[in-house]
Amino acid sequence: MAAAIDFYFEFSSPYGYYGSACIDEVATRYGRAVHWRPMLLGAAMKITGSRPLVNMDAMRQPYFNRDIERSAGYYGVPYTRPDVLPTNSVAACRAYYWLYDQDAGLAKKFAQQVYHHYFGTGHDISPPEVVADIAAGLGAPREGVVAALQDQAVKDRVRAETDAAIGRGVFGSPFFIVDGEPFWGADRLDHVERWLKTGGW
Amino acid sequence: MAAAIDFYFEFSSPYGYYGSACIDEVATRYGRAVHWRPMLLGAAMKITGSRPLVNMDAMRQPYFNRDIERSAGYYGVPYTRPDVLPTNSVAACRAYYWLYDQDAGLAKKFAQQVYHHYFGTGHDISPPEVVADIAAGLGAPREGVVAALQDQAVKDRVRAETDAAIGRGVFGSPFFIVDGEPFWGADRLDHVERWLKTGGW
Repeated sequence: MAAAIDFYFEFSSPYGYYGSACIDEVATRYGRAVHWRPMLLGAAMKITGSRPLVNMDAMRQPYFNRDIERSAGYYGVPYTRPDVLPTNSVAACRAYYWLYDQDAGLAKKFAQQVYHHYFGTGHDISPPEVVADIAAGLGAPREGVVAALQDQAVKDRVRAETDAAIGRGVFGSPFFIVDGEPFWGADRLDHVERWLKTGGW
Repeated sequence: MAAAIDFYFEFSSPYGYYGSACIDEVATRYGRAVHWRPMLLGAAMKITGSRPLVNMDAMRQPYFNRDIERSAGYYGVPYTRPDVLPTNSVAACRAYYWLYDQDAGLAKKFAQQVYHHYFGTGHDISPPEVVADIAAGLGAPREGVVAALQDQAVKDRVRAETDAAIGRGVFGSPFFIVDGEPFWGADRLDHVERWLKTGGW
């Protein structure tokens, strides 16, 4: 079987949310699995000196607000602008990798729920109790999740995953790597699909 | 007939080149004309504090170089990386509007030739003599073009067009405005098309 697609994303990224809604379907059509890899994008943005699209200058901000809302309709997913945007996704990231090491499928469902909670219903996902509630709602042991959020090994894991992503050139969300070829942005899903179909051009 | 689509672009923008290769076909499919409006993007970038995608930090530059080259294949147009990138597009902009006031169709052909010369074959388009040669090759009087490049009224016209674009929120290239709705990027052509088809969503 062909190699899995690496799908990097930041939980606080609206375009990452849109990417998460589409990538599995595209990959499945070409017999590919998808490796979901959340990371802390702030670490990459410190290196590039860029800032979140949700926190721009006065000229661009109105456009991005409009594009984010309009894109939800384009991708066919619900969108409610969160009051806290961007937010701190450290707890969500830690819970993801703790779950991932036990059950990758459950971790993916958790990531989808986190995105839905944040961008679908507009609720903040930074509080540890919110993250624990989402995981518990999917059947994970609530106390185990709460403990994992303060576990040094889990903290180190998130840092290592983020560093590894940066090492592969990931500077934005979503970011897809297909057979070594990098694609940035939900708006590159068309390119990803054509790459899968043709093997490059 | 429905209102024309405003297509704003900077001659020094590779994604503007890709937008120019596609927008007329999309518009025609939905019975729309396209008003081609080159502008000097640097004036908008001074306001937003952003910088050209062809002049980025060390982490993002390799990706953008790759994406620009790969996108040429995606849009099916030739691409040769110019030695001078970005370049000064003032002369091309002045010649465009001077031609436009006499013959809008000829001005569009001129814009297409400028883009082909710059991104298709990789030759700089900043020298006035290059711009004059391109216009003359399309049948415009060479001396008339050369004189227009130094004509204060033409200079003022380019400034006014650029100011008007900025006044409408244009901060990047390509930038499309459809019935008041703004779309930034060649990668928003799919959204433009859906907007034309559905009248919004």
